[in-house]
Amino acid sequence: MDIVSSLGLTNFVMQFSRISMYPFFDMAHYTLAIMSLKEQSGAVDVAHRSPIACWFSGMLCCFGGSILASLLLGEPPIESFTNNRNIILASVIWYLIFYCPYDKFYKCCNFLPSKLFIAGMKEVTRARKIVGGVMDAHSRYRNGWLAMIAVGWAKGAGSGLLSNFEQLVRGVWMPEKNQLLKMPYATKVSLIGAVLFTLQEMNYLPMTRHNLIFLYTMFVVSTKVAMVLFQIHHSPFAPMEAALYNMAFSWQSYSADPHFNTPEPCDKGEPLDDQCTASSGATSDETDVRKRKTKKAD
Amino acid sequence: MDIVSSLGLTNFVMQFSRISMYPFFDMAHYTLAIMSLKEQSGAVDVAHRSPIACWFSGMLCCFGGSILASLLLGEPPIESFTNNRNIILASVIWYLIFYCPYDKFYKCCNFLPSKLFIAGMKEVTRARKIVGGVMDAHSRYRNGWLAMIAVGWAKGAGSGLLSNFEQLVRGVWMPEKNQLLKMPYATKVSLIGAVLFTLQEMNYLPMTRHNLIFLYTMFVVSTKVAMVLFQIHHSPFAPMEAALYNMAFSWQSYSADPHFNTPEPCDKGEPLDDQCTASSGATSDETDVRKRKTKKAD
Amino acid sequence: MDIVSSLGLTNFVMQFSRISMYPFFDMAHYTLAIMSLKEQSGAVDVAHRSPIACWFSGMLCCFGGSILASLLLGEPPIESFTNNRNIILASVIWYLIFYCPYDKFYKCCNFLPSKLFIAGMKEVTRARKIVGGVMDAHSRYRNGWLAMIAVGWAKGAGSGLLSNFEQLVRGVWMPEKNQLLKMPYATKVSLIGAVLFTLQEMNYLPMTRHNLIFLYTMFVVSTKVAMVLFQIHHSPFAPMEAALYNMAFSWQSYSADPHFNTPEPCDKGEPLDDQCTASSGATSDETDVRKRKTKKAD
Repeated sequence: MDIVSSLGLTNFVMQFSRISMYPFFDMAHYTLAIMSLKEQSGAVDVAHRSPIACWFSGMLCCFGGSILASLLLGEPPIESFTNNRNIILASVIWYLIFYCPYDKFYKCCNFLPSKLFIAGMKEVTRARKIVGGVMDAHSRYRNGWLAMIAVGWAKGAGSGLLSNFEQLVRGVWMPEKNQLLKMPYATKVSLIGAVLFTLQEMNYLPMTRHNLIFLYTMFVVSTKVAMVLFQIHHSPFAPMEAALYNMAFSWQSYSADPHFNTPEPCDKGEPLDDQCTASSGATSDETDVRKRKTKKAD
Repeated sequence: MDIVSSLGLTNFVMQFSRISMYPFFDMAHYTLAIMSLKEQSGAVDVAHRSPIACWFSGMLCCFGGSILASLLLGEPPIESFTNNRNIILASVIWYLIFYCPYDKFYKCCNFLPSKLFIAGMKEVTRARKIVGGVMDAHSRYRNGWLAMIAVGWAKGAGSGLLSNFEQLVRGVWMPEKNQLLKMPYATKVSLIGAVLFTLQEMNYLPMTRHNLIFLYTMFVVSTKVAMVLFQIHHSPFAPMEAALYNMAFSWQSYSADPHFNTPEPCDKGEPLDDQCTASSGATSDETDVRKRKTKKAD
Repeated sequence: MDIVSSLGLTNFVMQFSRISMYPFFDMAHYTLAIMSLKEQSGAVDVAHRSPIACWFSGMLCCFGGSILASLLLGEPPIESFTNNRNIILASVIWYLIFYCPYDKFYKCCNFLPSKLFIAGMKEVTRARKIVGGVMDAHSRYRNGWLAMIAVGWAKGAGSGLLSNFEQLVRGVWMPEKNQLLKMPYATKVSLIGAVLFTLQEMNYLPMTRHNLIFLYTMFVVSTKVAMVLFQIHHSPFAPMEAALYNMAFSWQSYSADPHFNTPEPCDKGEPLDDQCTASSGATSDETDVRKRKTKKAD
């Protein structure tokens, strides 16, 4: 691509796309995945009641992407567990985070500068995983662009998409929440990445794979670091999403089913976001009300 | 078979079994599947909150059969998503049904004459899918008649059998309901079809495949059309089922475990059906009570 | 191994490892699996409301091990249903246990001497299944010792690990209970067996496979018979587990997350056990209370 070559970065980009993820980048991924597991309510309790369930839950957080991609491609999901060195690395990190004396390891990793560093490194692995998934699907289904997006997305955000079942291992079941209903930032950025890499793979983007990996990685690393640094919790894509939503799904909402109380029209980016969260709050209220009503009806 | 040849229908039947399902019959199937999705409580709400979850839910309704059959046969479930033209067709119909201005498309399809037509056409696809599933399983497991029935059934009624997981995508979880516990008509007729086509495939029926496809299709189309036309909601197999149930499972109910409060003996077809629905109504009340209690506890 | 050869048992052991499991040992396995299904609350009710759901649930109890192992290895899970003679045997036993007049069959099998006999025979099948799973995984993944353990464990205790989904078929959903969170004896002994047979397969144990099968079978049969005879409900591994738990996971509990109400420090094996059973007793009490409440609601 012109930007990269004009900056004289071609060699750097080539070398960047060849860096081995093992062990340091993988370590960062495992650390962040298991830290976010530990932060879920009840996880520490499970770690003390049943280390095996906790370990399995941790492994689902670390290897969820490749497990989900294997399931989609009809390959043995156990294959993720045959890579002994990665499993041992993840297990050691799981042990340190959950059982380290005085919780030292977790506190060190949660210290802002080290968390920034880990979060940045973890995002580097995301691009690689998505590319791996897209190429794997492409080698099987030449024109199956939807399969390519799905497998790439699964690799990049698999543990999130599997979260309901990961929670089930820990005895927690929250059916009203899943990452398709309310996508967090990581799931969204993986989906966008999967779409971009699929377009690149099918030659619809005027860019080489190396350059796209480099640019996508720069974007996700810098966004993530900024989000951790400034404690931003809302998605940076909100205005874009709102515009897209208005364009595709919302202009007809005036004409919705009369049984459905039409939401306020949302023409501006910012208010939509507020309204969306408000309406999702409202709808969850409404669904509760409805639930209660249907219960009474029963 | 004699009936068909004596009526001089041999040529017609041969041609009938060669009609391509794409695009019109497939369209009817997608339309009906997504219409019944839209009629479920909360679906319109999900469509406005998260189009992606709604789309995925719609695709599970349209392609549930082939996804379940792939899972049973150890094939990649993603393969259903590599047939681009079918996916695009289903997505367009999904969009029109959920987001068409003034809900025109849904209203048109729900208008009785067009609904009759669509429902009839949809049933034509059922026989083909079941035959496809049975033959696919037969080519792998020569004597596995149970596998043949299962795969045929899965292809014919897969989206129904997967309904718990389809609901989970939309954030709804109703474990006390599944289509094995209380089979709707479509699931029953698919099971019967899978048994018949398996018997035919194993040469236990004195009938060619073409004739069986024709006769089965005539039966399901006419039954479905009659059910839509006269708004019949109970299964036309109820008397047969009651007789079979009495013959096989009910004569011993007098002698049940003393810990189990024996249900009233049901010797006649009609009362059995009533009693069953009554008891299932009761249990849903109870589970609601339980839910409310656990909610309070939370 | 020296013990076996010095006792002149070599021939016996060889012949023992060649006994066919079909039909008598398999019969014992199916009988015990379906008896324990019948003893679950609500199962008899489901058997009368929906024989098909009950049958499917019963088959998951009988063939859960091979279904789970197939899923892990990416093989068709339907393959378990292509072995007609085993399916028919299991179905006949299912029918007799649930629908036999005056509940004769169940009562006969539940009579202490016959139950002892059946329980002993059932345990003989466990070693075989675990070995089968371990060898199957070993033939695919030479160094994948974790995959070998997982597949062996799945084969040996699959129906237990799948129990949440087996319950779902019957309309029951208890996410707060799963066999990873609170392992019953059968699951534990299968895990230990899977570890032992994996070590043997990788030549870390100074013992032939035949001898290990023989010794492991003797151990599980005698333990199980003793447990049935003296109605022991707690695990015989409790002291060992407590020691292992203290060694690996408990010494850091002083330093737990301040948000987590730190459990009493447990430095000695025995008190930990008490505390563990006490705490687990508490939770089981609580779940009992909840159960009783839901029962009353029923």
